[in-house]
Amino acid sequence: MIIVMQQHADPKHIEAVVKRVEELGYKVHLSRGEARTIVGIIGADEHKLQTSSFEAMDGVEKTMRVMQPYKVASRDFSQEDTVINVNGVAIGGQKIVVMAGPCSVESREMILETAHAVKEAGGSVLRGGAFKPRSSPYSFQGMGEEGLRYLAEAREQTGLPIITEVMTPDEIELVADYADILQVGARNTQNYSLLKALGKLQKPVFLKRGMSSTIQELLMSAEYILAGGNMQVMVGERGIRTYETATRFTFDVNAIPVLKELTHLPVIADPAHGTGKWNLVTPIAKAAVAAGADSIMVEVHPNPAEAWSDGAQSLTLERFATMMRELRPVAEAVGRTL
Amino acid sequence: MIIVMQQHADPKHIEAVVKRVEELGYKVHLSRGEARTIVGIIGADEHKLQTSSFEAMDGVEKTMRVMQPYKVASRDFSQEDTVINVNGVAIGGQKIVVMAGPCSVESREMILETAHAVKEAGGSVLRGGAFKPRSSPYSFQGMGEEGLRYLAEAREQTGLPIITEVMTPDEIELVADYADILQVGARNTQNYSLLKALGKLQKPVFLKRGMSSTIQELLMSAEYILAGGNMQVMVGERGIRTYETATRFTFDVNAIPVLKELTHLPVIADPAHGTGKWNLVTPIAKAAVAAGADSIMVEVHPNPAEAWSDGAQSLTLERFATMMRELRPVAEAVGRTL
Amino acid sequence: MIIVMQQHADPKHIEAVVKRVEELGYKVHLSRGEARTIVGIIGADEHKLQTSSFEAMDGVEKTMRVMQPYKVASRDFSQEDTVINVNGVAIGGQKIVVMAGPCSVESREMILETAHAVKEAGGSVLRGGAFKPRSSPYSFQGMGEEGLRYLAEAREQTGLPIITEVMTPDEIELVADYADILQVGARNTQNYSLLKALGKLQKPVFLKRGMSSTIQELLMSAEYILAGGNMQVMVGERGIRTYETATRFTFDVNAIPVLKELTHLPVIADPAHGTGKWNLVTPIAKAAVAAGADSIMVEVHPNPAEAWSDGAQSLTLERFATMMRELRPVAEAVGRTL
Amino acid sequence: MIIVMQQHADPKHIEAVVKRVEELGYKVHLSRGEARTIVGIIGADEHKLQTSSFEAMDGVEKTMRVMQPYKVASRDFSQEDTVINVNGVAIGGQKIVVMAGPCSVESREMILETAHAVKEAGGSVLRGGAFKPRSSPYSFQGMGEEGLRYLAEAREQTGLPIITEVMTPDEIELVADYADILQVGARNTQNYSLLKALGKLQKPVFLKRGMSSTIQELLMSAEYILAGGNMQVMVGERGIRTYETATRFTFDVNAIPVLKELTHLPVIADPAHGTGKWNLVTPIAKAAVAAGADSIMVEVHPNPAEAWSDGAQSLTLERFATMMRELRPVAEAVGRTL
Repeated sequence: MIIVMQQHADPKHIEAVVKRVEELGYKVHLSRGEARTIVGIIGADEHKLQTSSFEAMDGVEKTMRVMQPYKVASRDFSQEDTVINVNGVAIGGQKIVVMAGPCSVESREMILETAHAVKEAGGSVLRGGAFKPRSSPYSFQGMGEEGLRYLAEAREQTGLPIITEVMTPDEIELVADYADILQVGARNTQNYSLLKALGKLQKPVFLKRGMSSTIQELLMSAEYILAGGNMQVMVGERGIRTYETATRFTFDVNAIPVLKELTHLPVIADPAHGTGKWNLVTPIAKAAVAAGADSIMVEVHPNPAEAWSDGAQSLTLERFATMMRELRPVAEAVGRTL
Repeated sequence: MIIVMQQHADPKHIEAVVKRVEELGYKVHLSRGEARTIVGIIGADEHKLQTSSFEAMDGVEKTMRVMQPYKVASRDFSQEDTVINVNGVAIGGQKIVVMAGPCSVESREMILETAHAVKEAGGSVLRGGAFKPRSSPYSFQGMGEEGLRYLAEAREQTGLPIITEVMTPDEIELVADYADILQVGARNTQNYSLLKALGKLQKPVFLKRGMSSTIQELLMSAEYILAGGNMQVMVGERGIRTYETATRFTFDVNAIPVLKELTHLPVIADPAHGTGKWNLVTPIAKAAVAAGADSIMVEVHPNPAEAWSDGAQSLTLERFATMMRELRPVAEAVGRTL
Repeated sequence: MIIVMQQHADPKHIEAVVKRVEELGYKVHLSRGEARTIVGIIGADEHKLQTSSFEAMDGVEKTMRVMQPYKVASRDFSQEDTVINVNGVAIGGQKIVVMAGPCSVESREMILETAHAVKEAGGSVLRGGAFKPRSSPYSFQGMGEEGLRYLAEAREQTGLPIITEVMTPDEIELVADYADILQVGARNTQNYSLLKALGKLQKPVFLKRGMSSTIQELLMSAEYILAGGNMQVMVGERGIRTYETATRFTFDVNAIPVLKELTHLPVIADPAHGTGKWNLVTPIAKAAVAAGADSIMVEVHPNPAEAWSDGAQSLTLERFATMMRELRPVAEAVGRTL
Repeated sequence: MIIVMQQHADPKHIEAVVKRVEELGYKVHLSRGEARTIVGIIGADEHKLQTSSFEAMDGVEKTMRVMQPYKVASRDFSQEDTVINVNGVAIGGQKIVVMAGPCSVESREMILETAHAVKEAGGSVLRGGAFKPRSSPYSFQGMGEEGLRYLAEAREQTGLPIITEVMTPDEIELVADYADILQVGARNTQNYSLLKALGKLQKPVFLKRGMSSTIQELLMSAEYILAGGNMQVMVGERGIRTYETATRFTFDVNAIPVLKELTHLPVIADPAHGTGKWNLVTPIAKAAVAAGADSIMVEVHPNPAEAWSDGAQSLTLERFATMMRELRPVAEAVGRTL
């Protein structure tokens, strides 16, 4: 960490900052320039320091972090890519894994029909929501355990592992009984109670980026799960909130190569939420694969116009099959398979 | 809701949209213009309709909501301002209520010292965190129940009602045993499991705006609590995430008069989180009062440079007393008292 | 345009709005719902109406546009893609055009060296700045006409058409004397004096999206040039300003398919400004091609560490050649050539 | 400037960075930590260095600026507030100056009527646009010189100094012939050709913040004018672009105390553009005064519903008089007059 003192800072204030750094057990590197004095703290444990209390000290102009505040999630911790094996499906490896299914499980028939279509078109994981975070209390809130049972039946019939969302620590046990991967949605990326509880689980977790999380905050949230002992974490880009209104969110494609550089965890792209419109899903899925994503998650529905949620961004079964066909050469163009 | 059809949309597609609206039990107003056909759905129940499935229909260009998607939170529901009485402190009335205290309860001594100073300077509610949402798993996570006990002791000594954060449905019972107001922090504004559970409580809840919540989403989250039957909800502005890096967040002062126009719920301003710097707290507190806020929440610490969290944005006890003195004439200038 | 009246709006106010619409020569479609009355104005000339004065009328809650406010730039105007021919290079056609060169022309030698390297690696257009918009008045401001002369010499030697930035109406004549394509940078996207002057030119113009322009505003700025009579306009995505600080800007990859849907103009992607880091340029260039961009513009410098501007986002000559090799299969995977 | 080297950076790369810093004539402070080596450059001339070329060097992870990149605009340059005298009106002093008038001059009658009303209600400067930056080429573009003549006539009749916008270097001479203050609008904040030309003028300039300018960029743009020799510069907040759609822009009230801390230049607030809605203008004007603004600029129109531009955010003459009455006690509450 770097502490920049104000111009002409009182020597007593500089001394007080130095003393405090030393009290905390760190070594100080002092640089006295013409205009400013700079107090440098360089150590492997910088992630344990907080900048805020130094900024409260007299004579301090600002502080700047030198190192990333996460540890286990970082490339410093592991240079090698983490590959997570889910019932034989390797996520983070050479093959790009496609996860697909409806936003919500709406009935036994629809999830079974969708699961077979996903399987047939080449998808590897079945998604489907049973507990749904909806912005309106008057909207459909998910089928709950009944939905989980239908998902499990779809897995039995197709062999596809299933991924579904968990919203609160209470539900983890139940959801983990059925699901192969537990998903944390964008509204819960900084729900630390949930993250801590998932850290104690020994099941894969897919952590989505919050709609206004920085990449660093996403990795800090991943760190909560990793620090708890659960090393099977995947992170994902699903669109961030910007001033642009032509799309529901702005898919931050930059985040894909940045995440691949900063972390060893698998990186999943969600072009459905990242755009909000079904006709943008395929071009953005291609872009994500071209940029280096390890996996693509999309929403598929037999009849989007009657979907109980997210119809506008759902592909029909036919369109999903077309997307898969078009995605394959792009994957190959960047040295992957699909 | 307005459904705009694409230019030269196929009459069959228009018909299908009309049919679907009617199936859902709504009446249709059809406007055929030179360039576009528009399907209007006007009804008191628009908040039950979702736009997304219509956008999935063939020939639809876009949809636009006419009415707000919340109901109980709206001015349509109640023209009169809601005033919430907390142990004799009226929030939402003529007097501007100041809530102050440390980010975290750090010890019995510090919370008692702070509480007396807050009381003496004219504060009406004591804040203090016992369960803390921290972006790093390596940071102090709060004293838990021990912190709640110290808060309760501070209330006994000073008579100040206490407000503290709750992070997960599990903790509600425990926190509600001690606190007079339960606070939902910015990272949990769309934690619907938590909001639903708080809807069943009969205690005041202060719901902060998420760092990327729209004003509408904030009111939709309030609606979750209200729809559950708990009418004692206050909402608050605490800074939103923008591209500007000179401050930690951008305090959206516009949100104050907008919220006062859209909702009858009391509106609280948090200039500490809204700026991230103690020296900006007083000018922004004044601005918030001038813009019409019903209450101000600030962070106060006996020694911010040694605070375990949020030191940079905490006022010392002396600076808090100064802020109170300076805030009073501003309150009076807009016809309020402090 | 749709005008939503307030709940229980006074009939006189509704009447006044209707009267005003009719005075302006438009037809009214009135929809009286249970809760709100809606005044619809549907006509081919909606782009001539402004919403703001209606919002100033008593009883009006809000207005919403039905149609896009641009005309010549829209797909309604031309379903067919515009292809712009620049000295034999077709932009907007089947072949993806790569434009490359240094941020600034720094000397005769460096631009000639770069031009030959760009040509050899398969680039089709040479870029280079002679008039530079720099955020600091103390930074190098470009070589001016001397730089233009070196660019022209590079064109003679390599046959590559040249593109360079113009910043003010005064400079247009001079710049147009040398350049094949005139570029409008992100800080001038809404410099309407400049756009109007370019509308009178008969030379191709590349208009970059402003760092906080919406897609609609970008097309409105294009409309300024088109409405002036210059139909040779290309538009481009170069990153927008968001809260994320890991990259200099957020490359809005969604904008590419959205622009291809809304306009017939060629769409160019600039991954160098869109990320700010050379190591992200290649993955984002691939993403842009996969998403449907017609052209890629990148910054190339013989020695980025000594570049007078934008060194951090510039590719070396070797890295540019590698990017070209890696981009080719991605172009082919989406049915294009490079 | 601080240059952070990558973990385990090659000693050769560290050496190369040090050598380059020394070649540029700066002294190096080297800090070798356990995990990272940091190269510090501390000098009074940091504003002349650019970070970008260092980021292009091998082994460099990132760079961080220690000092602000502007000089004449900074508080380091002048601790004392700059007060600009315009025909007897002191801007930046104890009295808060209100600038008011229509968005556009629409006719001789309307500008004269408005000027008298502004004067009578206590306004000190008359605003009015003659050259208008409009997002649509089909909108009214301003009356040009005719508008300037009417403004001058209004000045003669009322004694109010006039402020009007200039959009391009060509127009400066003409506009400066009539206007007392030249305004640079938000779309031209980084129009460096215009700023340079205004630096050669000896007349007051009001530079508005761009809708996505950082505070630092605004001051860098001010630096362009100041560095050119024109010291009569005022800067202003007019709302920034965020994800929130309830208001047209988000008025960044934090920017007011931040600007007052960083610069000695007068700070003007524009609540009309900062909100986009007339009913928010008064509360936000109060907030701006409470936060420390030196001046308020608002839009006033005799009949906003028939305004040719910005009707929705314009106050009627009566509402302006009311705003003035309500603003006065707020100004006094913060030790100012109005």
